[in-house]
Amino acid sequence: MVKLIIFFRRPADLDAFEDHFAQQYVPATNAMPNVKRATVSRALGAPRGEPAYYLIQELYFDGLADLNQSLNSAEGRNAGAVLMSFAHELVTLMYAEVWE
Amino acid sequence: MVKLIIFFRRPADLDAFEDHFAQQYVPATNAMPNVKRATVSRALGAPRGEPAYYLIQELYFDGLADLNQSLNSAEGRNAGAVLMSFAHELVTLMYAEVWE
Repeated sequence: MVKLIIFFRRPADLDAFEDHFAQQYVPATNAMPNVKRATVSRALGAPRGEPAYYLIQELYFDGLADLNQSLNSAEGRNAGAVLMSFAHELVTLMYAEVWE
Repeated sequence: MVKLIIFFRRPADLDAFEDHFAQQYVPATNAMPNVKRATVSRALGAPRGEPAYYLIQELYFDGLADLNQSLNSAEGRNAGAVLMSFAHELVTLMYAEVWE
């Protein structure tokens, strides 16, 4: 299984971020094809200092081809545009293969 | 559910890293109490530039109390010591609550 990981650093305006995230962004990612599972992880802390991220979203796919097809679909491009519209300076994305 | 996330930046010496990881570190984390699920994610790429991390290990617990108890156990302290012995300059750790 592969996953698209979207790391969000802590936004300055939490309320505005949460509104955009819940009202616009999550519905946009829910519309993406090929997604087998989606999780949102919210930071609780870190052993030392502040957690590196405020929130991490993970979208799981059967393989990299499915992931790429999803990102390149109209729905995937729309989700990317929504993401960049409110979190451009907060996000880092990567793809990874998951071993359990 | 909560998870302990251990982000590993890309090591300079991949072979040495992989040896320590597989031979010493994974067995040490496997001995930790309260772990309900463990995954290792290996970077495949990123939409732009190099992926932020080489590898991400995630240890899942029923709650933060279980996580803290595990980290503070003899086995948890040993795993932390093993981690720092070979990846001190590569790792970032955080705790997060996971929503599915």
